Amino acid sequence: MTASPDRAQPFGERLRRAGEIAAEHGVDLLAITPGTDLRYLVGATGETHERLTCLLVPAAGHRAPPAIVVPKLEAPGLVGLGLADLGVETVTWNDGEDPYLLVSDLAGGPRRIAVADSMPAVHVFGLRDAFPDVAQVLAGPVLRELRMRKDPAEIDELRAAAAAIDRVHARMGEFLRVGRTEAAAGADIALALVEEGHTGAAFVIVASGPNGASPHHDVSDRVMQHGDMVVVDIGGPLPSGYYSDCTRTYVLGAEPDPEVRKAYEALQDAQEQAVRAVGPGVPAEQVDAAARTVLTEAGLGEHFIHRTGHGIGLDVHEQPYIVGGNDLALRPGMAFSVEPGVYLEGEWGARIEDIVVVTADGCERLNRQPRDLQVL
Amino acid sequence: MTASPDRAQPFGERLRRAGEIAAEHGVDLLAITPGTDLRYLVGATGETHERLTCLLVPAAGHRAPPAIVVPKLEAPGLVGLGLADLGVETVTWNDGEDPYLLVSDLAGGPRRIAVADSMPAVHVFGLRDAFPDVAQVLAGPVLRELRMRKDPAEIDELRAAAAAIDRVHARMGEFLRVGRTEAAAGADIALALVEEGHTGAAFVIVASGPNGASPHHDVSDRVMQHGDMVVVDIGGPLPSGYYSDCTRTYVLGAEPDPEVRKAYEALQDAQEQAVRAVGPGVPAEQVDAAARTVLTEAGLGEHFIHRTGHGIGLDVHEQPYIVGGNDLALRPGMAFSVEPGVYLEGEWGARIEDIVVVTADGCERLNRQPRDLQVL
Repeated sequence: MTASPDRAQPFGERLRRAGEIAAEHGVDLLAITPGTDLRYLVGATGETHERLTCLLVPAAGHRAPPAIVVPKLEAPGLVGLGLADLGVETVTWNDGEDPYLLVSDLAGGPRRIAVADSMPAVHVFGLRDAFPDVAQVLAGPVLRELRMRKDPAEIDELRAAAAAIDRVHARMGEFLRVGRTEAAAGADIALALVEEGHTGAAFVIVASGPNGASPHHDVSDRVMQHGDMVVVDIGGPLPSGYYSDCTRTYVLGAEPDPEVRKAYEALQDAQEQAVRAVGPGVPAEQVDAAARTVLTEAGLGEHFIHRTGHGIGLDVHEQPYIVGGNDLALRPGMAFSVEPGVYLEGEWGARIEDIVVVTADGCERLNRQPRDLQVL
Repeated sequence: MTASPDRAQPFGERLRRAGEIAAEHGVDLLAITPGTDLRYLVGATGETHERLTCLLVPAAGHRAPPAIVVPKLEAPGLVGLGLADLGVETVTWNDGEDPYLLVSDLAGGPRRIAVADSMPAVHVFGLRDAFPDVAQVLAGPVLRELRMRKDPAEIDELRAAAAAIDRVHARMGEFLRVGRTEAAAGADIALALVEEGHTGAAFVIVASGPNGASPHHDVSDRVMQHGDMVVVDIGGPLPSGYYSDCTRTYVLGAEPDPEVRKAYEALQDAQEQAVRAVGPGVPAEQVDAAARTVLTEAGLGEHFIHRTGHGIGLDVHEQPYIVGGNDLALRPGMAFSVEPGVYLEGEWGARIEDIVVVTADGCERLNRQPRDLQVL
């Protein structure tokens, strides 16, 4: 667990706001194990494991200051975070001690504890047993109010991530070639993500020909053929932790059949209409409906088998989800993917995905690579 | 999520045994989200995310067969697992549907559900709300009875992992040099892990000079100096998912001071005595005590600030933990680290770590690199 010193500024404000929003939600205490919520709140990176590390943020109005419970041997990793300056007390524990009791000692008698959505069951139940009569709820609804709306520095990071993945897509002619396997292309693409500034490739989907009909195809040993449609959906984090995620569909060596071309054009129109639907006050599901309506009218509605998008930030999938039934009103600063697709079982698939950020009067599209079907 | 076809054999037996052990624990249903438990049970790789994927294993005596609930768009990733041959029904759901209700429909009225230790709170609470009057407990106690005792194929994988990390340690003279930063050495070491057969470097600790006193130091921009003690604790997974983990301590360019040398020799003796203490029927804490006694008698007890070891397999840290208070009797096939250390705040540190597997009459040490303090 190490510091992200360049992003140290906003943490005090985020902690304060988290406490306020917790109070509004009737939550007495936020309990946040390592993960993106912890990184968002205090800049700590690293993963949750079996030894409990947990940030405690009391709701506004409670007396106790924020504290972080951490195994003693990991405490040095927190030094660079400036936690004392943020008013966060560091409380260490040793192997053989019960860290949940420590949390209970620090917590000041909460009636309702909200735990990080990603907290593993082993810690959820550890806290449950330490607070036997206290209601446990998810911290997601509290944290998402903060995390969904990106501040200007976060939007800069998402722009940088989008530019980095755009540079990889711009090089796709180096990677996709008739006679290569998806896996070989994928390995080169993963390397290119790092070359263009990502710390790693979080996912590399190279779905050629009939594999394109599986939205979450990974890569395979299939050899790419002349005339294949190839869906390339790739992304990863920058050193700041903010993710890229962009899909383009290519065709190898030849123009596609007219009916494929026609379906692709409907998809492109669906993506365009969904992006145009984005704006402040618009319910998230309306963006989904915009894409779905175009595809349905083109007779492809049943082939668009997933939601239209997902929020993005420190997590590659986060709130808001652009899906039927989500009436959340979009607000400036929200960042998410717009990625309709069409999937013809056993034949081919296509998807177009950009990250957009809601602005005062519409949205900014962060990915800039051409969305036309590109022949490579 | 993809198959590990070479390890398909044991899964049927593991599922059957998991159901039996669940019944012995008074559990009606195991609910296992993606992670190493799922990989162990059916060979599925991949991570948990916001869309629920969950394997349901009814306890022996219940009528329902095992089933896996999976988002429809991810179902193709399960095809290679041969789930139908294992008697596992695949049940898909679409965005907008409630997957927890689906679990509830499939579950057959359990009174006690055990969830994977790693299951994120968002799914734990989703299941809690779908089964409002059903007790939730951890599946860890059930799964660990299986996972702690490695079968011969698993031990082969751990041997291969140990040999791979031994090859990296054997090359340490290429990486550690006076005038280089820890970070530069660490980047080369991470690459070497991959060159020697790991799919990636899960952790690379290069802790030189005073940084050695922090057991979980990562790497830093500190430039390594003549005479530095350098703790190198490295490991990662093989393609099979089984981990390596091995620590050696080096000294750069010169023999250390006599008192450092003396402390190191006590550490080496502590590690040796702890390894010799390992055998079937021995309580785990007795191995910890063996190391601790040697260091305490050498006046270094207060500088050994962590447990002696952790189990290893598909997780780099898993049961059994070699720690005071754990009276679990060791059994043949259990695999864990033996890694005492000494940490002199602000001065230096040292640690020696091998993976051992309990045999019928003692243990097999999987790591073979010399344990003497090596001058590079």
